[in-house]
Amino acid sequence: MAGGASGPELAAAVSGAGGLGFLAAGYKTPDAVREEILALRALTGRPFGVNLFLPQPPPADPAAVDAYAGRLASEAARYGTPLGDPGTDGDGGSDGHDGHDGHDGHDRYDGYDGHDGYAAKLAVVTEARVPVVSFTFGCPAPEALAALAAAGTLTVVTVTSVAEAVAAERAGAAALCVQGTEAGGHQGTHRDDPRADGGAGLGLLTLLALVREAVALPLIAAGGLMRGAQIAAVLAAGATAAQLGTAFLVCPESGASELHRRALTDPLFPTTELTRAFSGRPARGLVNRFLRDHGRHAPAAYPQVHRMTAGLRRAAARAGDPHGMALWAGQGHRLARPLPAAELVRVLVAETDAARAALCPAAVPSPDAPAAVPDPGPPASGSTARDVPTVPSVPPASSAQSAHPAHPAQPVPSREGEPT
Amino acid sequence: MAGGASGPELAAAVSGAGGLGFLAAGYKTPDAVREEILALRALTGRPFGVNLFLPQPPPADPAAVDAYAGRLASEAARYGTPLGDPGTDGDGGSDGHDGHDGHDGHDRYDGYDGHDGYAAKLAVVTEARVPVVSFTFGCPAPEALAALAAAGTLTVVTVTSVAEAVAAERAGAAALCVQGTEAGGHQGTHRDDPRADGGAGLGLLTLLALVREAVALPLIAAGGLMRGAQIAAVLAAGATAAQLGTAFLVCPESGASELHRRALTDPLFPTTELTRAFSGRPARGLVNRFLRDHGRHAPAAYPQVHRMTAGLRRAAARAGDPHGMALWAGQGHRLARPLPAAELVRVLVAETDAARAALCPAAVPSPDAPAAVPDPGPPASGSTARDVPTVPSVPPASSAQSAHPAHPAQPVPSREGEPT
Repeated sequence: MAGGASGPELAAAVSGAGGLGFLAAGYKTPDAVREEILALRALTGRPFGVNLFLPQPPPADPAAVDAYAGRLASEAARYGTPLGDPGTDGDGGSDGHDGHDGHDGHDRYDGYDGHDGYAAKLAVVTEARVPVVSFTFGCPAPEALAALAAAGTLTVVTVTSVAEAVAAERAGAAALCVQGTEAGGHQGTHRDDPRADGGAGLGLLTLLALVREAVALPLIAAGGLMRGAQIAAVLAAGATAAQLGTAFLVCPESGASELHRRALTDPLFPTTELTRAFSGRPARGLVNRFLRDHGRHAPAAYPQVHRMTAGLRRAAARAGDPHGMALWAGQGHRLARPLPAAELVRVLVAETDAARAALCPAAVPSPDAPAAVPDPGPPASGSTARDVPTVPSVPPASSAQSAHPAHPAQPVPSREGEPT
Repeated sequence: MAGGASGPELAAAVSGAGGLGFLAAGYKTPDAVREEILALRALTGRPFGVNLFLPQPPPADPAAVDAYAGRLASEAARYGTPLGDPGTDGDGGSDGHDGHDGHDGHDRYDGYDGHDGYAAKLAVVTEARVPVVSFTFGCPAPEALAALAAAGTLTVVTVTSVAEAVAAERAGAAALCVQGTEAGGHQGTHRDDPRADGGAGLGLLTLLALVREAVALPLIAAGGLMRGAQIAAVLAAGATAAQLGTAFLVCPESGASELHRRALTDPLFPTTELTRAFSGRPARGLVNRFLRDHGRHAPAAYPQVHRMTAGLRRAAARAGDPHGMALWAGQGHRLARPLPAAELVRVLVAETDAARAALCPAAVPSPDAPAAVPDPGPPASGSTARDVPTVPSVPPASSAQSAHPAHPAQPVPSREGEPT
């Protein structure tokens, strides 16, 4: 997620604990990105990453933007603030902002246009020899990827389909971030095409399997990951690493607003949806009033819609109204744990290790471990509990217990306020 | 998937190879189900399962069914066959059919109504002491689950949400089939609610994590699973077993039509979509002309729409036109391998074992294994390749290679016609 949620403090805490913290460069000025890199390096000597947005093509249909503006007039009245100028491609404007409601560091945020200062930020991260640079909304030119590699940077391109993965490999990316439809915030789809909406949205485990067989690059799995058992799962499915966003939004070091944090585990916000309502590009957020009222009417017009709604979202945040904000969230949001980021990294590592150990074929079942499946009694054809659970595929290999791995009696201490 | 695809031959082959083959009872007469159980037992002495549909509530809006019938008039003209009678709840009718295009065993298939002969089929499977009985589209009454358990049957309820999982546990189910949005064919959602469409569709790995923490029952993971590495993944995420449908549709023993099989790996059908176009309930199929033209207009009216379109789909199949058929497919369909079912089970077991072994923390990295991530050169802050790939979460625990598990140099022999 771009904007204020992923700043130096959160990234430093994650990197310091042995993870790889990331700075969001999207929506920020090149100067702000340079400052944040310096601030992060003052906090930790460990490696870290920076995420950049690719420039966007001009919007296809200005009339659709106008129609959506008409629709949002009632929101402007409700929050007592005018709609932002949708702007045109290349027009910096002055009313764009961070995209993270409740965050008011205006001086750090540029008037976001379709280019997002891409060339200047690319120069900043190259000059700063940032260890890892990842890209969202497209694939950089081969020359840009080669220049970063020459500067010692590992390049990562976010992909949501096999075609994007193949294109990124051909362009020279060093690794891919494989983003499932479960992911919170913007989908990193390279070209937003509303005609593909119904068929888009591959689940992470399917996308991983498809991409794993299409490219040879290391894969970083993203989308809905909240627990170490899920991290072990994506490693089993062929990923080299896992990327978590929503899980860290509730950490004290994150820049997410208090309203946003609270909403993530509030039973009043039980579901998420992919929507263009807030930005004009599909992004997953908690279903609230604004999303419900406008989601189906929002055009594919990014960042025009983002600019139009930025002021509304800030006004809603000031008014303490989560129903007018963009509450980005992955599908697993209910599992968020408000731990300090370093502690969350340690818990995730321990959970991952436990799940991996339990999956190990050589794992010796503990004598008091439960059977994999309750004995249904003697079925007609003489099956055993071991035979039963595999449906129509694969029997537990060498021991029933070792096929029952990833819930070793609650690896994580039960926490107050955590839905179960 | 209900109907002709999962008959005795396929189930026997899967069970004979050590999996758990399933008979589909949906859309069949109680007598046909009894005969298929006998036929299956004549083929194998191994355990097997039978899947039943729960009765459906009456449709909410008959006017919407009429409107959709008007829309489908052009299809009736195109295929030279009248629309089926949508029927009313409890009306057996005589024109309903198998729901599997290209399968013409009419005598075995009832005129499908909203009850699907549920009570009679429940009596059949109870009397036959079927080892495993699973349920789709709802949760049986506690008494029915208890009666099956008393007969020595393991009961499995299909769930697509935490609420459904909790309800099934309370009703007394012995295990749950946890169905992600990736799954082919019908979603087993207990009550179809179009207002929830945008937020429905949890990815399997997210749904597993949520359900794992909400109930204590053994979980069978379903949805998009095509490779052993994915099976290892769901085991890591807390499942006890994996359930595969689309992967077995292309086996010679399956009852799927030749057109359906071919379409699954045909590059002309690259994507799937959840649609009510064919049956009136959300089901995932390959995007073809019929789905594209009518998907957005189809009402939530199952099985009325199923009955209306059954004749059209058969006529399209007879005409060799896959664009008028319901080409049910999970999101991983391109990875389908047309192996004999027993061989497919063996390949999946071998892949699963390899992925589990590679994930084992104690696995000794082979000396010539590739590093998890290509060395990006010496980054400014002195990271190593081992540190880099974990983004912002979890570093490979004890060895970089063991975090790079599930693509042990193509566990499956590369196959002709298989997209890569």
